[in-house]
Amino acid sequence: MIKQYLLAPGPTPVPDEVVRAMAQTMIHHRTPQFSEVFAEAREGLKALFGTKNDVLVLASSGTGAMEAAVSNLFSPGEKVLVINGGKFGERWQQIGQAFGLQVTQLKVEWGKAVKPEVVEKHLKVYPDIQGVLIQASETSTTTLHPVQEIAELTRGGPLLVVDGVTAVGVLPVPMDEWGIDVLVTGSQKALMLPPGLGFIALNERAWARTEKAKLPRFYFDLRLERKNQLKKTTAFTPAVSLVFGLHASLEMMQKEGLERVYARHERLARATRAAAAALGLKLLAPENPSPAATGIVLPEGMDGEKLLDYLRERMGITFAEGQDQLKGKIIRIAHVGYIGAFDVLVAISALEMALKKLGHPVAFGRGVGAAQEILMEGLD
Amino acid sequence: MIKQYLLAPGPTPVPDEVVRAMAQTMIHHRTPQFSEVFAEAREGLKALFGTKNDVLVLASSGTGAMEAAVSNLFSPGEKVLVINGGKFGERWQQIGQAFGLQVTQLKVEWGKAVKPEVVEKHLKVYPDIQGVLIQASETSTTTLHPVQEIAELTRGGPLLVVDGVTAVGVLPVPMDEWGIDVLVTGSQKALMLPPGLGFIALNERAWARTEKAKLPRFYFDLRLERKNQLKKTTAFTPAVSLVFGLHASLEMMQKEGLERVYARHERLARATRAAAAALGLKLLAPENPSPAATGIVLPEGMDGEKLLDYLRERMGITFAEGQDQLKGKIIRIAHVGYIGAFDVLVAISALEMALKKLGHPVAFGRGVGAAQEILMEGLD
Repeated sequence: MIKQYLLAPGPTPVPDEVVRAMAQTMIHHRTPQFSEVFAEAREGLKALFGTKNDVLVLASSGTGAMEAAVSNLFSPGEKVLVINGGKFGERWQQIGQAFGLQVTQLKVEWGKAVKPEVVEKHLKVYPDIQGVLIQASETSTTTLHPVQEIAELTRGGPLLVVDGVTAVGVLPVPMDEWGIDVLVTGSQKALMLPPGLGFIALNERAWARTEKAKLPRFYFDLRLERKNQLKKTTAFTPAVSLVFGLHASLEMMQKEGLERVYARHERLARATRAAAAALGLKLLAPENPSPAATGIVLPEGMDGEKLLDYLRERMGITFAEGQDQLKGKIIRIAHVGYIGAFDVLVAISALEMALKKLGHPVAFGRGVGAAQEILMEGLD
Repeated sequence: MIKQYLLAPGPTPVPDEVVRAMAQTMIHHRTPQFSEVFAEAREGLKALFGTKNDVLVLASSGTGAMEAAVSNLFSPGEKVLVINGGKFGERWQQIGQAFGLQVTQLKVEWGKAVKPEVVEKHLKVYPDIQGVLIQASETSTTTLHPVQEIAELTRGGPLLVVDGVTAVGVLPVPMDEWGIDVLVTGSQKALMLPPGLGFIALNERAWARTEKAKLPRFYFDLRLERKNQLKKTTAFTPAVSLVFGLHASLEMMQKEGLERVYARHERLARATRAAAAALGLKLLAPENPSPAATGIVLPEGMDGEKLLDYLRERMGITFAEGQDQLKGKIIRIAHVGYIGAFDVLVAISALEMALKKLGHPVAFGRGVGAAQEILMEGLD
């Protein structure tokens, strides 16, 4: 008997309240019953996005919402700047290229945040850049990019298109206040849902661009989608059960209070970083760590794939691995979504035991104790 | 957002496999479909009881099965010896008295096991004792009684009636091998089910007594029940969903293997005891601790009710309290049922944090570290 602990940055654990909401009897989507739930959920999303704009709900994963941003904003051959500091920066580049844009990449060392002054220089060198595509939180490297500062640079200039997949609902990303033009996210992270919903919000400047944009789109035509969603329905068949779940998860987040949700993510991340330090392990992104997940560099010579296999198969603990050049060298422990203080303590105690099992000297309880000190702050 | 951890000795956590089995569409109980599931589950119970006898399934809690034992075995005014070392020993006494038996009590200090030689003396002093009623594991004091030794004393004499509620499925209680005449348990402990099913097995000697017994019984008439259950049905309406769940939980236990189930309970209990020792806390039952739950004596002067309230309300951790004279002085951490290594580590880290919060000096991670050392044994 091995209990399972899902501690990877998406899919994240789905709370019982959400599971039960999704289990309710199927209803037809062209009904007042669905429309009411759908409209309430859409309204609830605005607080997470920090916007007065519409947040559209798509039956797709987060990548679908990223593609929708590209195909609705640009025209063939237009130039965009992609901030590429990890697998999801790479994804912006792939989408841009697939749609025939001229993609200028700003490559950033994995685990580092992009420097605003470098972005500024690029924008000056290439004044014809129509859009800047970036991650708020680069999940693959557990790094935050300075979106707020970059928004200062794009104001009145190129559109700032932000992948907020492990940021929206994790930390404040106030779209309107910062001046983000387009913000997207997915369901399986902070929203505590299974994968299957994408979300996207555009400000007025971006909506104006959708009329001029000439890239082909049909399923992700946001003009059509907005027209329908303002009438409390969808252009195509919505993912009905996931929308029920979304309604329930937003209710949970509202009940907890967004400020407390953000503080919880930050506290869990700080506790995990403190535990890593107590165990003598380095962070992948020590300067700009994301509160969504913590990347920990494994001891020199340790086989990270073996460690993760052991954790998953023998201990029931699922962490995320490193990708590409980081494969086998790091682990990523998630804090995003339905994760509490004891999930962090399970993660750290499991890591201690697995490291020891694989031959690394560990003083049991040392990482846990360091995490406990910080987690105490969440108690009153 | 406070995640809930149910770590009291019953009800215990119900695994997803069991929840899903219980959620299946309701069927009628007088059907071949129900009979098949019911018969397979009844067969599976024999290994847990260590018996070739029938194990009957009752729609009742464990106390119903205890009452069934008394009302089916004895006649008004007959003398029984009750081993009373806690709240459940007391319950045998209350049932015996309610049914008009002459109950001789052998009171045992809470947290101690009864001494076989004292039982032996009682049986010599009162040769007309018809039954000895005892707990295998006294849940209220987290103590094991020496049932095997006592079975040696009752062999061929009075009937030995054993409440196995936190013993069957937790540790070996081989009814036939030891010579237990009647063994009962309930669903919400090792069987990982919600409350609502009682189980009882009688050996041939006990079945013979049911024919002579003159106490009134109707719902719990075991002769009628056996007649029906041998025909794969029940005398009265069975708890259909719980029987589906039972079938699933027995399958899980068979898959894990009973030896491993027992070893797991023992290991989790040892880890918890080691953690208590590392934290300088005393055990309630240091000599004969039950692997079902560990009773820990709180530091002098600490308000145990406040501690448990704090753990439950602020941390989401449900331990069991002490009862009667132990109220506020101890906590009980359960290991019975669907509980794994990380549940112990959650329990200990939460206890460390709550003790500190209430003013007791604690070196964070010390108890956790001691538990980790032992829990490593369960990994390969």
